[in-house]
Amino acid sequence: MPELRYEPVTKTWVIIATERAKRPSNFAPPRLPRKEGQECPFCPGNEKATPPEVMAYRPKDTVPDSPGWQVRVVPNKFPALNPEAAAGATIRRDFFHAVEGAGAHEVIIETPDHERSFATQEADEILLALRSWQDRYIGLGENRNLAYTQIFKNHGAVAGASLEHPHSQLIATPLVPVTLAAELANTGDYYAEHGRCFFCDALEKEEREGSRLAWRDENVVAFCPFASRFPLEVWFLPRRHQESFAVATKAQLFSLAGALQAITRRLFTEMHDPPFNLLLHSAPYRGGDYHASYHWHLELLPRVTIIAGFELGTGMYINPTPPEMAGEFYRAE
Amino acid sequence: MPELRYEPVTKTWVIIATERAKRPSNFAPPRLPRKEGQECPFCPGNEKATPPEVMAYRPKDTVPDSPGWQVRVVPNKFPALNPEAAAGATIRRDFFHAVEGAGAHEVIIETPDHERSFATQEADEILLALRSWQDRYIGLGENRNLAYTQIFKNHGAVAGASLEHPHSQLIATPLVPVTLAAELANTGDYYAEHGRCFFCDALEKEEREGSRLAWRDENVVAFCPFASRFPLEVWFLPRRHQESFAVATKAQLFSLAGALQAITRRLFTEMHDPPFNLLLHSAPYRGGDYHASYHWHLELLPRVTIIAGFELGTGMYINPTPPEMAGEFYRAE
Repeated sequence: MPELRYEPVTKTWVIIATERAKRPSNFAPPRLPRKEGQECPFCPGNEKATPPEVMAYRPKDTVPDSPGWQVRVVPNKFPALNPEAAAGATIRRDFFHAVEGAGAHEVIIETPDHERSFATQEADEILLALRSWQDRYIGLGENRNLAYTQIFKNHGAVAGASLEHPHSQLIATPLVPVTLAAELANTGDYYAEHGRCFFCDALEKEEREGSRLAWRDENVVAFCPFASRFPLEVWFLPRRHQESFAVATKAQLFSLAGALQAITRRLFTEMHDPPFNLLLHSAPYRGGDYHASYHWHLELLPRVTIIAGFELGTGMYINPTPPEMAGEFYRAE
Repeated sequence: MPELRYEPVTKTWVIIATERAKRPSNFAPPRLPRKEGQECPFCPGNEKATPPEVMAYRPKDTVPDSPGWQVRVVPNKFPALNPEAAAGATIRRDFFHAVEGAGAHEVIIETPDHERSFATQEADEILLALRSWQDRYIGLGENRNLAYTQIFKNHGAVAGASLEHPHSQLIATPLVPVTLAAELANTGDYYAEHGRCFFCDALEKEEREGSRLAWRDENVVAFCPFASRFPLEVWFLPRRHQESFAVATKAQLFSLAGALQAITRRLFTEMHDPPFNLLLHSAPYRGGDYHASYHWHLELLPRVTIIAGFELGTGMYINPTPPEMAGEFYRAE
């Protein structure tokens, strides 16, 4: 029988559709050859094909926008939000309400190697990408006009990646996004009721129950959430209670890199490298006290099902793969 | 410059990304040949390939599950929610919360003709589909265990249609879906503040402004909402204030059929028939008084952009086609 499972962080329900149950292997897409990288604007030697770099990890004897870098961060060529817009400037405020699209939109080129990805990189290479996320997350927070920076990775064309070279993106917004606002409010309510962080409780209960666990070490626990919206969805939580990604230590980030490597490698080898989105959720830069109630984390959402009319109409997801089956898939490594 | 536009019905913000601005014609997908329909389980003669029909419009001298029908409604072969589950039965209620997946999941086969769609049908054929929606919407509402019926259409594989034969679906849920609950709450707040229905006001203001209007007659107005989440998004509203689709008259449904025909025909001829989702939003069956504050409507969401990491992380959409450009596209008919 299908189940309706409650997702307390966003206060939604998910349908675990057992009548449509699918083992993870049902979703493995056909293997596709990778394209040639010669014309890739993110490959070394093509630095002039992007706007000038905002930041890079590169040897001191190399110059900006030239080869030699390990990680390179550049403005998106077609930014969704623009640092030159006037923050807070109202365009219209009658029945209709619009403000100038102030913010930032940057691309993090995670490695010079076109052919690699988290699944085939070493943990210390992934660590560099995570450190660059943290540097930009902190750096953009110094701009008082910005409320939040959404860091995300679109892996594969179906998940929204228009270029194949390993990269992630960030969009910094002048307001707290609606999903994060809901998470902050709901986990705030949980804290008010229980006197504990929802995520700390979830981590403890998932470890005790074990059936949805995917990976763990002394710093990070990865599990398939009870009300997973997507087949093979994984959340990555630091064991230590921290509201913001900004304060994560190098040891924590190294563990997180190991977790990402293990999980994406499993998808790569057993599922033909399916498309996925990876999202960072962290407390906003200012306003509100989420110190005790929020807990930064990553969500990995494989895109092997389609977001269709039911999901767009209701906000409810239909997931044909029970997360217990997904946990087993990852633990079988 | 990009704009952030506020969407009051769901209290979200949308990025109108002018730096990425795209004319509608940029999104026209390649023309694909239609597949052969001989093996189609929805075609006349193949009635035994589906579960027995729940309802059909067919001449009195034909028998159920045989040819001759104009519209045929059957249970989904792999239902997301199941009428045989025990409504309200708790599976688990500790830290984790799950209930049995009671509900209904049906397919509305809109026409015996495999080759047609709203874009190429006559308005009186589309009217039959809409009447079947209404019949099932009302019929399922008699089940006291059901709170709501989400009726939707996935057109094209990218929008989630696994079969090509023209059809829509319904999923009846034992609870009010989160998106509808938010719409009811937010438009209730609007009513409390202004003493008017938000949708009635939107309709009046869109008609007066005109730039986002897409189609209208004496019963129905279609426009591209100010904070459209998707390129070429269209909302269809009845002029008459009605909270529920259940009470729409035949004249209103005929106008709606004409609107759907005109809008989908424009997409078909000028945009190579792109994938889209079509959603009905209506007041829930019981509980709460939304008589004055809610207003049923349809939303047509072309799926020519990808819902990627930013959208899934933030709940905010990036729309590269200003709705004023979309309105112009539809009005140019």
